[in-house]
Amino acid sequence: MNINKNYLNLEESYLFSTVGKKVAEYIKQNPDKKIIKLGIGDVTLPLCKTVIDAMKKATEEMGKQETFRGYGPEQGYDFLRTAVQKYYKKNQVDLKLDEIFISDGAKSDLGNILDILGVENTVMVQDPVYPVYVDTNIMAGRKIVYSDCTETNGFLSMPDENIKADIIYLCSPNNPTGAVYSKEQLKKWVDYAIKNNSLILYDAAYEAFISDTKLPKSIYEIDGAKTCAIEFCSLSKTAGFTGTRCGYTIVPETLEFDNVKLNKLWIRRQTTKYNGVPYIVQRGAEAVFTQEGQAEIRKNIDYYKENAKIITDTLDKLGIWYTGGKNSPYIWLKCPNNMNSWEFFDFLLNRVQIVGTPGSGFGKNGEGYFRLTSFGSRENTLEAMERFMGLRKDIS
Amino acid sequence: MNINKNYLNLEESYLFSTVGKKVAEYIKQNPDKKIIKLGIGDVTLPLCKTVIDAMKKATEEMGKQETFRGYGPEQGYDFLRTAVQKYYKKNQVDLKLDEIFISDGAKSDLGNILDILGVENTVMVQDPVYPVYVDTNIMAGRKIVYSDCTETNGFLSMPDENIKADIIYLCSPNNPTGAVYSKEQLKKWVDYAIKNNSLILYDAAYEAFISDTKLPKSIYEIDGAKTCAIEFCSLSKTAGFTGTRCGYTIVPETLEFDNVKLNKLWIRRQTTKYNGVPYIVQRGAEAVFTQEGQAEIRKNIDYYKENAKIITDTLDKLGIWYTGGKNSPYIWLKCPNNMNSWEFFDFLLNRVQIVGTPGSGFGKNGEGYFRLTSFGSRENTLEAMERFMGLRKDIS
Repeated sequence: MNINKNYLNLEESYLFSTVGKKVAEYIKQNPDKKIIKLGIGDVTLPLCKTVIDAMKKATEEMGKQETFRGYGPEQGYDFLRTAVQKYYKKNQVDLKLDEIFISDGAKSDLGNILDILGVENTVMVQDPVYPVYVDTNIMAGRKIVYSDCTETNGFLSMPDENIKADIIYLCSPNNPTGAVYSKEQLKKWVDYAIKNNSLILYDAAYEAFISDTKLPKSIYEIDGAKTCAIEFCSLSKTAGFTGTRCGYTIVPETLEFDNVKLNKLWIRRQTTKYNGVPYIVQRGAEAVFTQEGQAEIRKNIDYYKENAKIITDTLDKLGIWYTGGKNSPYIWLKCPNNMNSWEFFDFLLNRVQIVGTPGSGFGKNGEGYFRLTSFGSRENTLEAMERFMGLRKDIS
Repeated sequence: MNINKNYLNLEESYLFSTVGKKVAEYIKQNPDKKIIKLGIGDVTLPLCKTVIDAMKKATEEMGKQETFRGYGPEQGYDFLRTAVQKYYKKNQVDLKLDEIFISDGAKSDLGNILDILGVENTVMVQDPVYPVYVDTNIMAGRKIVYSDCTETNGFLSMPDENIKADIIYLCSPNNPTGAVYSKEQLKKWVDYAIKNNSLILYDAAYEAFISDTKLPKSIYEIDGAKTCAIEFCSLSKTAGFTGTRCGYTIVPETLEFDNVKLNKLWIRRQTTKYNGVPYIVQRGAEAVFTQEGQAEIRKNIDYYKENAKIITDTLDKLGIWYTGGKNSPYIWLKCPNNMNSWEFFDFLLNRVQIVGTPGSGFGKNGEGYFRLTSFGSRENTLEAMERFMGLRKDIS
């Protein structure tokens, strides 16, 4: 028996473990100092009431003979798919029910979708990038090319006719940079994909943080996208589902390669290797899309967005360049005084006990940049920014 | 962009859709007749009280700031892994916590485990077989060889030194045949695997139905298995979790191929492509392993086993040959009067309105056999067997 040797080509990521070690070491040396973590990529507010009520009701149903549910459809229950359909409709995107697949999260489906795609395809990822796009393709042995995101292009790279790729990952609002593509920019990617017979894998996990109505929340707001793109979305950051696990993937029926509908292949993949999201969780997810649910999650998102504003206001005052923060929970800032990412990490930790994430951990173009997130508490975010302002003389 | 062309080699299974069509057609022609479905592969009893209470409590926790949980460990929470560890200990199997991976079900992990195994491996599946073993390997382009299960070997094939395979699927108690390997038989498979450097993928999804204490519930009851086998288990049939989704996969630390620990590869796969089982569901699963939970699920399993006994008693009276039913929810019978599987299906449907599953749908060796299950209600099972007995003159 041989293992899948592609796994041997994976690089270990020491990003978060190194962050953890440095923080632990600092605490050991300075037990009296209060650390504030603004590197956290997880939500902190609890699930909203409407969701809790729905899940409790569903749990009760599972305990009674007459309302018990066994195997559900692998693609998700129609009650939830219909809710997602209506949600898209608000952004003028018409989807058929059969194009909507309920999943246990964007990360799972972003990895699993590769099952139905040939290993000989060349993959394009942006740099800096969410590491999962890279690792899942290394596992399958695909060739990877990089599309450079830099200060010059606002960390939003555009298609280059000299770089061909069969599979293109786009994430907007972006993790880690928080940058968001405009409709005009996305149209160029869609045109490139159609011209080159490429498939776009569009990660829209942070779409709920977009408040600028001119910015697209779905790639299907762009003409032609239904012939070249699969979209992945998640309730993790939208509704605090990181520990509850529910998302959805859109595979348009018009998406065809090699004269085969990807929708049909994906159904086959899912029915063979998956059994769907728990009924209880699907009822919770359905509640997110109700009027009450939308109002409640909006309050939570606004809370995080206010944190982001507190951070960007501070960066504005200090004259520090950044992307994100306006339509995203992430703020991606340029390290002051030409510090590299880890130098700035040490500087912040030692001087003001703030922990963030070194940008270099997300790719070579991340060097010299730094990620802060808005998922902390209001109190901690305010205190962190006060401390930050205290560094004014040293960093501007 | 090219699709994964291996998908084009998949055969469409018409088994359950044909069953559905035939039944619908019959009902249309005979609207007054009462159909009894004994083909059902899903549980019908609701979740037990201890599980419901645990999930309601966990749901409450998710709604409060101080007890909310975001991302959990991909491998599952230690509270559940510890519960699984103790469960194995009862069968004299010692597992380390790091060898236990909580999953959303055996089907998912049986498919996903292939990610870490080379595509050049030859796979051995038994015939008849749970179709997922075959389809997941066709998707990856692996060569498949079959190990024949027939009346002669009691539908429990044994290793054949003339047939080499790198990956071997064993399912015991078996789906669809209900046959169960003895320790002596499993030892031969373990010895074969060690000698041939093969990996056994052991599907123990129905282990909870084993009441004969001499039969192994886990392959790790066999010496040497920890160097050649991964075990998959599920709470689907054990505790009625088909719509709640939780299982576990055991990857021993001693399992090494190409000088690489499979445990390490599997952690890498899961952390990259998976985010774990919902916290609420893990609390429900934990409750299954408590003393109260075990007593409650035992009642349900006993209910199904009593149904199975009602079926096998009838087959005994009629002198019909079968496997399963004693330590399994499935009964696999030889069609009387040399009928083939679909002939017997039509015969049962038309004569006594009982629906079962034609064995030919599970592979060539299934031809001439038929699967009944014990997941129906007591009332329906009793009535079905009464009708069956009415056929005495025609089928013996």
